[in-house]
Amino acid sequence: MDQSDVKQWLDARMCAQLRIDRLNAAYARCIDSDELEAWPDFFDEGCLYTVTSDDNHRRGFVGGIVYADSVGMLRDRVSGLREANVYEGHRYRHLVGPASVLSLEDGRARAETPFAVYRIMRTGRTDLFVTGRYVDVLRLDAGDEAKIVERRVVCDSSSFDTLLAIPL
Amino acid sequence: MDQSDVKQWLDARMCAQLRIDRLNAAYARCIDSDELEAWPDFFDEGCLYTVTSDDNHRRGFVGGIVYADSVGMLRDRVSGLREANVYEGHRYRHLVGPASVLSLEDGRARAETPFAVYRIMRTGRTDLFVTGRYVDVLRLDAGDEAKIVERRVVCDSSSFDTLLAIPL
Amino acid sequence: MDQSDVKQWLDARMCAQLRIDRLNAAYARCIDSDELEAWPDFFDEGCLYTVTSDDNHRRGFVGGIVYADSVGMLRDRVSGLREANVYEGHRYRHLVGPASVLSLEDGRARAETPFAVYRIMRTGRTDLFVTGRYVDVLRLDAGDEAKIVERRVVCDSSSFDTLLAIPL
Repeated sequence: MDQSDVKQWLDARMCAQLRIDRLNAAYARCIDSDELEAWPDFFDEGCLYTVTSDDNHRRGFVGGIVYADSVGMLRDRVSGLREANVYEGHRYRHLVGPASVLSLEDGRARAETPFAVYRIMRTGRTDLFVTGRYVDVLRLDAGDEAKIVERRVVCDSSSFDTLLAIPL
Repeated sequence: MDQSDVKQWLDARMCAQLRIDRLNAAYARCIDSDELEAWPDFFDEGCLYTVTSDDNHRRGFVGGIVYADSVGMLRDRVSGLREANVYEGHRYRHLVGPASVLSLEDGRARAETPFAVYRIMRTGRTDLFVTGRYVDVLRLDAGDEAKIVERRVVCDSSSFDTLLAIPL
Repeated sequence: MDQSDVKQWLDARMCAQLRIDRLNAAYARCIDSDELEAWPDFFDEGCLYTVTSDDNHRRGFVGGIVYADSVGMLRDRVSGLREANVYEGHRYRHLVGPASVLSLEDGRARAETPFAVYRIMRTGRTDLFVTGRYVDVLRLDAGDEAKIVERRVVCDSSSFDTLLAIPL
């Protein structure tokens, strides 16, 4: 592989992918380390964050199990979780795969990224909690770190725990 | 880390790895999104695709649970799956790790990539289906996207569901 | 995204991340392919390697289920495993996520990387064994490949199999 090949892959899409992968690594670490107060900072001000099932996503239902359309709502959500003391009961471990960049225009990327989330109960019991994908719109022109404009957390199953509380 | 360090890692092997990771992200997304008709396009014309167990792989058995040695056979397989209406019953979620590039010569790479596949039943039940690794030969000189010349899907266990149908 | 954006992401932290991801891919492959004799080579001479639980890690306990503070101790460990013939009983499959680089100074990086490890029993039965994160200090100035100076394997649960034997 010579220099021109190097230039070929070093294209905008690859840059976008690496930046999104870095965002997702930091995002997952934030949640799993119980640094939830920093979680809203991954989002753009007028963001959309939803958690829904694949069935509902395909039918075009915008709502979901969780729906937030501003950073403020995400902050409220975190406050609520702190009051409910959710982390006493369980923690998560996210494993996030590499992003697929679907389009890239005007500093915005559409991307999909698969994930699996494990739940660790206070007893030590660890289970697969849910699998799914992030269906995202991301801003790449807002400084060094990518920002989430829209994150639809599309869970493969619709039968996971209705007590869903910690962000996915 | 200065410019010369940057150049050091920005070598052919790293380029190859990033392109293979991108291929694998798109490959997994294609299957998990039920876009199976596009799945054969990831392969080179005279490709080899097998699904086998680690036991059989070590013993050098070329055959396996699934064996296809042309893109045409992969297309036939997809047609068969559509007739059997496999996706009514279940779906997959692939989580694919980063590739290890083992060699790189004349535009061809040998690589190994670990994966875990979860199966989501119509009922919503989600289970670990199988873990394993892709043992691959890939073409990197066929345009922007890497192409699969050989993909041996080596499953860690030999006792998974014999009704294996959706590609891994 | 123009050239200056390309330069922006192609910074030292991204380089470090890619090199750490490459290290982790090779590390996991080494263990899961039962090439344990090569496992100590991923470490720097005066390394620290511990396996502990999140609970103990938070309390600042340095010890753990496994503790080694030199490459020699890692080699002894591998010899012990060979004598005990551990791989007769089971094998692992690591899935390692992308690293989060937390700091980078003087050719040393601090990083955290999530993982899930599956255990495949001789019978073919495959289970989630443990999830957790690598809390690492890595040398990036020791040639082409990153070296592990400290790897604290922090398991999410403290109730996993006390017969823990194969490296995580």
